[in-house]
Amino acid sequence: MDKINSLQNAHVKAWKKLQTKKGRKQQGQYLLEGWHLVNEAVKAHVSVQTLLITEKQLATAPDLTKFPAVIEISEEVAKHISATVTPQGVFALAKLPAVKADPLSDLDLSRPWLLLDNVQDPGNIGTMVRTADAAGFAGVAFGTGTVDLHQPKVERSMQGSQFHLQLVSTDLNALVAKMQAAGIPVYGSELNPRASQYLEINAPACFGLIMGNEGNGMDAELLTRTDRNLYIPIKGRAESLNVAVAAGILMFGLYR
Amino acid sequence: MDKINSLQNAHVKAWKKLQTKKGRKQQGQYLLEGWHLVNEAVKAHVSVQTLLITEKQLATAPDLTKFPAVIEISEEVAKHISATVTPQGVFALAKLPAVKADPLSDLDLSRPWLLLDNVQDPGNIGTMVRTADAAGFAGVAFGTGTVDLHQPKVERSMQGSQFHLQLVSTDLNALVAKMQAAGIPVYGSELNPRASQYLEINAPACFGLIMGNEGNGMDAELLTRTDRNLYIPIKGRAESLNVAVAAGILMFGLYR
Repeated sequence: MDKINSLQNAHVKAWKKLQTKKGRKQQGQYLLEGWHLVNEAVKAHVSVQTLLITEKQLATAPDLTKFPAVIEISEEVAKHISATVTPQGVFALAKLPAVKADPLSDLDLSRPWLLLDNVQDPGNIGTMVRTADAAGFAGVAFGTGTVDLHQPKVERSMQGSQFHLQLVSTDLNALVAKMQAAGIPVYGSELNPRASQYLEINAPACFGLIMGNEGNGMDAELLTRTDRNLYIPIKGRAESLNVAVAAGILMFGLYR
Repeated sequence: MDKINSLQNAHVKAWKKLQTKKGRKQQGQYLLEGWHLVNEAVKAHVSVQTLLITEKQLATAPDLTKFPAVIEISEEVAKHISATVTPQGVFALAKLPAVKADPLSDLDLSRPWLLLDNVQDPGNIGTMVRTADAAGFAGVAFGTGTVDLHQPKVERSMQGSQFHLQLVSTDLNALVAKMQAAGIPVYGSELNPRASQYLEINAPACFGLIMGNEGNGMDAELLTRTDRNLYIPIKGRAESLNVAVAAGILMFGLYR
């Protein structure tokens, strides 16, 4: 088994670059961090190419030494390539899925989809994917402008739900058009005079629900394309809801 | 107007200590940070004793120079006393409310209450208080073990909702007993075989809803005291929901 201790090692430099979208694209790989995510990836038959593990973690899982593609790394290397302050010390290098000619082919349109329009906070994104999973949604679409789905903090905060539903990166206008052509309604979520109270909606088995940017809400043009626009009634004096909380209320409220 | 530039200044050392519960108790004060919170505090007639402001921020609000209790601070001091990485440069020193002989007197029991049992993440707590405000709840009780409500990160993440509803720090067993003595039901939130689906509940105008610790859930003894215990049905394969998202679904689902 190879051991890598130095931050000057060329592999370490390459792994560090996986924190950026450019680095992931160039190397065709992304990094999954922590036992929970690595185990979920293996269960989901994600193409894991190499495991990176510290001596301390390897001691807890001695069977791994038989696995061909394991590299032992120092605590220093673990800290360097980690997106967290206190890394657990186990990582998987996973193969980026091939870019499809049509990212919208093979979508499961039998159940609802969550569409993320320019959402910026990795924690919010991960929480929404996890909630969509819990609510029984078929998938989540990452619109242009939304943080990349293979960004390490996004991967971490999805806590395994990324392996339970379909995730696509796409221009949301194209997905909305495809859904509507199939007779599937798409709901916006923006508080404006023409919006409907979400509990008044009888949502069908499949629909699209768009959540917008944390500060600025939904893209104005995308909003004009929705079938309806929904709001959550605010009874108190809070100015707004956290986007992930609002998404949870809407997903569980519309799809029971 | 006084100006303070040095981190060695005795006031600066005292303000820094307001980040700890001990420091707040000793000085009888807490710190609110950022224009939004400071403005909300003033609107809510919170007893603001002194404003601390950088030269740059003071230039945007020249009328403040007429206010007697304003101290100009350097960017370095602002950074030192701030709980954020990039402080805005404006703070209010607010007076801690007097400790009541009976923290449970004067509670508004005409509308629901959210009870936080050993919740640890300041962001989750703030988001839940904000959501309780939006849902029209009367108040939020911070149980023993839950992070202190005047902790700077908790204050920040409440985004002004701390001034819109009643907040109390209390032993939750005492609050539950008080509510039940008044005929008000208290619902737990823990997935176990005796739990009821939340949508099957016809909640009255006032009820208590307890949210537990992020990892360990509710305190076992407290759970035995609830009138009913609720769960949110998970349709997909997510293991759990984020506590703030679950609280949002339950609050908006039970109180319409």
